[in-house]
Amino acid sequence: MGAEFQLATRDDVSDYVIAPDPERAGLTRAVEGVDQNGEAMGIAVVEERPLTIYLNSQEIVTAMTIGDFPEYLALGFLRNQGMLSETDVVTRVDFDEELETVVVRTEVETSHEEKLKKKTRTSGCAVGTVFGDMMEGLEGVILPQTQVKTSDLYALAHRINRTPSLYLEAGAIHGSVLCEGARPLVYMEDVGRHNAVDKIAGWMFDEGVSGVDKVLYTTGRLTSEMVIKTALMGIPVLASRSGFTAWGVDIARQVGLTCIGRMRGQRFVCLSGNERLVRDVDPSTVPDEGKKHRRKSAE
Amino acid sequence: MGAEFQLATRDDVSDYVIAPDPERAGLTRAVEGVDQNGEAMGIAVVEERPLTIYLNSQEIVTAMTIGDFPEYLALGFLRNQGMLSETDVVTRVDFDEELETVVVRTEVETSHEEKLKKKTRTSGCAVGTVFGDMMEGLEGVILPQTQVKTSDLYALAHRINRTPSLYLEAGAIHGSVLCEGARPLVYMEDVGRHNAVDKIAGWMFDEGVSGVDKVLYTTGRLTSEMVIKTALMGIPVLASRSGFTAWGVDIARQVGLTCIGRMRGQRFVCLSGNERLVRDVDPSTVPDEGKKHRRKSAE
Repeated sequence: MGAEFQLATRDDVSDYVIAPDPERAGLTRAVEGVDQNGEAMGIAVVEERPLTIYLNSQEIVTAMTIGDFPEYLALGFLRNQGMLSETDVVTRVDFDEELETVVVRTEVETSHEEKLKKKTRTSGCAVGTVFGDMMEGLEGVILPQTQVKTSDLYALAHRINRTPSLYLEAGAIHGSVLCEGARPLVYMEDVGRHNAVDKIAGWMFDEGVSGVDKVLYTTGRLTSEMVIKTALMGIPVLASRSGFTAWGVDIARQVGLTCIGRMRGQRFVCLSGNERLVRDVDPSTVPDEGKKHRRKSAE
Repeated sequence: MGAEFQLATRDDVSDYVIAPDPERAGLTRAVEGVDQNGEAMGIAVVEERPLTIYLNSQEIVTAMTIGDFPEYLALGFLRNQGMLSETDVVTRVDFDEELETVVVRTEVETSHEEKLKKKTRTSGCAVGTVFGDMMEGLEGVILPQTQVKTSDLYALAHRINRTPSLYLEAGAIHGSVLCEGARPLVYMEDVGRHNAVDKIAGWMFDEGVSGVDKVLYTTGRLTSEMVIKTALMGIPVLASRSGFTAWGVDIARQVGLTCIGRMRGQRFVCLSGNERLVRDVDPSTVPDEGKKHRRKSAE
């Protein structure tokens, strides 16, 4: 991946509110290995560590995460699970690195016992988090009819693919990017795609940023979980390099989310909410992805 | 993906005990969409549906799955969670398609209340399933010092990549393959990589097949969870097209599992258990992956 990283540029990174910081200590580790020729070699691998999230005195979940932005991850997880509402006042968020815990404290304590009982312990990667509450939260969600220019989508994909990232540094990681127009705002990465998107949700909640005029770009599959989280965040458009699952498409159509997949170079497929797209550019004029910037796979 | 599928061959599929059956009704669905030029198009997307697993009268988990081999998924999940031991006698496995449930019945009922309490509700995709029990199960696991020829590994990768699959048909899916020597035996696919590997574990448990002389090939990342499951299945070698996470490498080294990643064409990296590899072929004589058979990403 070294060669690819060389080709990534920092030209546009100044424009991000939060961009990946692949050099940050603790996110990757150098590991010694042996290559196909039997020769010793070192590679960078992505860290994963447990983070236990508490809401007041209630332990909620232990997430496996690369470890950056634990406060945003906790806030976004609780928000997307419907355990923190828009009107809840968060008084403090305390991260303890040694204990690997983050405690979100609210002004008014509520009992989450009932909610915790309802939790489905899921084993599907596509729905690594808890489902019942998330589907409930969708009731009443109405996504705005914001228009999206395809020229902006192409520009976003181009910029995001060239942004230095843990993916380009070490691979084996997912990325999600909150965007506005042609500008990527917040680019989060994590071992699970839902952590990346929860960190974005946490940032939005903390900063009071609305999803109305945003696009969420993700490197991962458009599963039911990604679709639900995007809708819960009030973001009307979800775009990905990767493919779809049938349930993801079903829910996107139900909630009226624009869902664009298989976005590579000039190609993409829209399986839901095509009416939001303003096709203001001839796709044949869009350059193909350079081989060097083509994401291979986090899988 | 159509063009790629044309190039896949059924030549070697007869050799599999279980090969993917991408044509099987219900695994994919044709969905109408719109492409980058605004033209209507249909694509095949992978299904995902809930499956609730019971052990006797105890509800254990709801997994999201493509829906094939529910009995193997249930058996393998329970086995890998340590809820079914090698000596437990399974009397019946009942799948109810309408209720989306599968009930595994054992000769002697045991209380799993205590185990259920210990469960960590994880949100990490890398550890979509429950962790505490799995790590416990690793105590006492000793993996055999089986030798593995690199010529066999190359042959496996070549055959698996060319085997018709849901991935080639619809993308957005993970695959795991149980192999012996140069022969792929059981190739399972699912929306989550752990479901694919659990289905293999279920087949092994049901058929009484040992992992001692096997290799597990996976399309997904070598996360802690994949490493733990492979070790629990008694399989000494795990190989993947994809990358590593640091914790996955740590555990592989702890339990003495051979872990090979980034296996593409002639290249691979071994980060653990290199002593099992018998380098009986010059990598430079191995042909590069044809562009048409290169897996892009399930992610």
